[in-house]
Amino acid sequence: MDVVAQMKNFLEPRSVALLGVSRRTGEGTYNILEYLLDYGYKGKIYPVNPNAAEILGVKTYSRIADINAQIDLAVVNLPRSLVPQVIMECVDKSVKSIIIATQGFADATDDEGKRLQKEIDAFVKKDGVRILGPNSLGVANPFINFSSSFIQLEMSKVPIGVVCQTGSFFGFVESRLLGKGIDLGNACDINFAESLAYFEQDAETKVVALHIEGLRDGRGFIEAAGRLARKKPVLALKAGKSEYAAKAVKSHTGSLVGSDEVWEAALKQCGVIRVRSSEELGDAATAFSLLTLMKGKKIAVVTSTGGLGVMSVDACEQFDLELAKLSPETIARIKALAPSWHNIGNPVDIWPGYIVTKNPLTKVWTEALDSVLSDKDVAAVLFIWGVPAHSTVERLHHTLVKLVEAHPDKPLVCCLVGAYAEEAGRILQATGQIAVFYTPDRAVRVLSYLARYSAFRRSF
Amino acid sequence: MDVVAQMKNFLEPRSVALLGVSRRTGEGTYNILEYLLDYGYKGKIYPVNPNAAEILGVKTYSRIADINAQIDLAVVNLPRSLVPQVIMECVDKSVKSIIIATQGFADATDDEGKRLQKEIDAFVKKDGVRILGPNSLGVANPFINFSSSFIQLEMSKVPIGVVCQTGSFFGFVESRLLGKGIDLGNACDINFAESLAYFEQDAETKVVALHIEGLRDGRGFIEAAGRLARKKPVLALKAGKSEYAAKAVKSHTGSLVGSDEVWEAALKQCGVIRVRSSEELGDAATAFSLLTLMKGKKIAVVTSTGGLGVMSVDACEQFDLELAKLSPETIARIKALAPSWHNIGNPVDIWPGYIVTKNPLTKVWTEALDSVLSDKDVAAVLFIWGVPAHSTVERLHHTLVKLVEAHPDKPLVCCLVGAYAEEAGRILQATGQIAVFYTPDRAVRVLSYLARYSAFRRSF
Repeated sequence: MDVVAQMKNFLEPRSVALLGVSRRTGEGTYNILEYLLDYGYKGKIYPVNPNAAEILGVKTYSRIADINAQIDLAVVNLPRSLVPQVIMECVDKSVKSIIIATQGFADATDDEGKRLQKEIDAFVKKDGVRILGPNSLGVANPFINFSSSFIQLEMSKVPIGVVCQTGSFFGFVESRLLGKGIDLGNACDINFAESLAYFEQDAETKVVALHIEGLRDGRGFIEAAGRLARKKPVLALKAGKSEYAAKAVKSHTGSLVGSDEVWEAALKQCGVIRVRSSEELGDAATAFSLLTLMKGKKIAVVTSTGGLGVMSVDACEQFDLELAKLSPETIARIKALAPSWHNIGNPVDIWPGYIVTKNPLTKVWTEALDSVLSDKDVAAVLFIWGVPAHSTVERLHHTLVKLVEAHPDKPLVCCLVGAYAEEAGRILQATGQIAVFYTPDRAVRVLSYLARYSAFRRSF
Repeated sequence: MDVVAQMKNFLEPRSVALLGVSRRTGEGTYNILEYLLDYGYKGKIYPVNPNAAEILGVKTYSRIADINAQIDLAVVNLPRSLVPQVIMECVDKSVKSIIIATQGFADATDDEGKRLQKEIDAFVKKDGVRILGPNSLGVANPFINFSSSFIQLEMSKVPIGVVCQTGSFFGFVESRLLGKGIDLGNACDINFAESLAYFEQDAETKVVALHIEGLRDGRGFIEAAGRLARKKPVLALKAGKSEYAAKAVKSHTGSLVGSDEVWEAALKQCGVIRVRSSEELGDAATAFSLLTLMKGKKIAVVTSTGGLGVMSVDACEQFDLELAKLSPETIARIKALAPSWHNIGNPVDIWPGYIVTKNPLTKVWTEALDSVLSDKDVAAVLFIWGVPAHSTVERLHHTLVKLVEAHPDKPLVCCLVGAYAEEAGRILQATGQIAVFYTPDRAVRVLSYLARYSAFRRSF
């Protein structure tokens, strides 16, 4: 079986055996069967529990050997001492893809953990068996309502693929982040290279976000990441930078972290965009999932507040973007709205053109944004607006949708502030064409990633 | 009148005249009278409008001269050409404190703006008259349900004082930020020095957040900020760093920005903590408003996820905090919960002590947190926890409240993740004793500010 077909067993299983599913259900029982039924997974589910004939109305088997059907994927969540035996039974049943959720192997301090890890390692790649984990929530695939996680997830069909070494990225940190997800855990077998190969060919994934603690096969990672980055944006959060952090990583996933300088160079070489925090990872992934690439690094800022306009200029400088020089035509169109005394530059402060000159709000938005989006020197637009009242939310939505549809070649990022900012933000972002943030710095930062990746894509 | 008494006229007026209040009410009319009634302001309100006998049931005057009572504060929101005449009328009526909301003075490009600004300047300090603005939303004081802002605000009685040069900080950017607020606008008269003097004596304000574009009286600022910082934490966001940004500032508030290096040195010298973004300003102000100071810079991290534990170690390094060396007693208490193979260090990963060993959640939380909070080497605690379900929210709340009450000398900051993180965060933060963030970086960053300011306070 080739790597992609194997990874499809993990991410798109048509049948799954659950080894270690409790008869207890409800709060605090971490019952994966209950979650799969709740998600609405349509594949075959085979729960295994020697003490039950059925759980939640699903026929339950004493041993995996009793299941008289083909099984794409086995999910093991049993005490660590039982794991090698159960894997043997999976292998005997010709299951080729196995997720191990259990902790206490390479991540443990004792000899028993190391011994058990070796027993598991012995199965890897024999007869085509591949293992994801141990110490892993496994996979998530919202497009088929499936996850092997023993913690219930809130999944959404976003085109963001995640490969991580902590289950925290499974809808916990930055819950908006997760589309399809792969938690490598201790990564005794399936690693970044295999995961990246899957996402390279996956039509449901437009951008890939990585959380990396460490890995063994540097060359395999660089090859796979470099190949993927030429097709789709790849973002990486490299955690575990210091010596102290390396120790914490050792007891978390048993990985070797490598020097941070080497990582910095390697990620750059592959065209992978390195981010510095989980917040940045979420922001950037969201932006890439919604926006088109940029034809340069000059932006226009249209704002209802001069103060945030100034902050966005500071952010442009910090994140290496430039303010476009607006054409005389652009300036003239905006000047027509404003009081005579008002200076029109970039940032374009459109507040006096509304509050002093009394132009209708939609006219001010449309004229200002359409003119900068039409300006040849402008590669993307940041729109800063205060939403203190509910009543403008729908008008804003309709106006901006028309504008982005008229200018599909230029990304529009909003920085919304005020009491109704988040309500407006949710509606705008749901259009799938506009990215929304709530401080100018974060909005400018994502545009800088967009500009950088766009330049990388133009470079070959 | 001394400066504080004068500033009380602005922030705690017992009576206010509204010059330029519309007969139109409702959405999009920016009717300050309507907002004041809505907030429940208990002072006397005197609307002035020559075309109305009453507005919203409040007796309305043709001219300020017709008001037969003392007026603490006048708020002017009229076309710029009318402003000097109206100020003259205020002066004739012995009004000593005047807010000018109108734009188009020093912030304008034309000669008329400069001329009008000079006319206004001529009134300043004559007969004790002080002016806030122009180009300003004025003040906000949630403790008396008052604001002069012509944009409706959502105020809350938080002990965070704000002095800013953009109305955006009046509940727009980081809406959680604003307690009492002063928008300096163009700052033709009232400036940072006067505002800081007010907050120095104000018992309702525990921490002061500044948004600075530029100022004229550097010495006055440094004196006032230095004096205040010795009593209360002062945070500053200095906007307008580059030459390009300086131009944007010029057309925003007409201020001179000064060199960024000079600002850096000056703020440091006063003991003012400089932050780099509005997000940081909000985070830090919230933390200082809720938490006690720290007796050092060593922290303990207690986490449900090793992955976020590693990220918090990276953040400690980035923000110059240290991980405490836990005592053998602390380690022993936590080890008693965990499976034998589990390594206990700092960060303390308590997940196996729950999911593998099956201890009750409240016991795991209490034992782990109480032991690190009792550890002499620990100056503050970061608690990272995933809240995927609603059911744990109340238990978490009760447990943490007991712990902070038993350890009032050490700040507890939470980093919550998962679908119910924000619900839990709101409840925990409402206790007034626990600060909550949603990524480890932001949680660690506020602790670093706390440590730095605590060291400053110990230094004299």
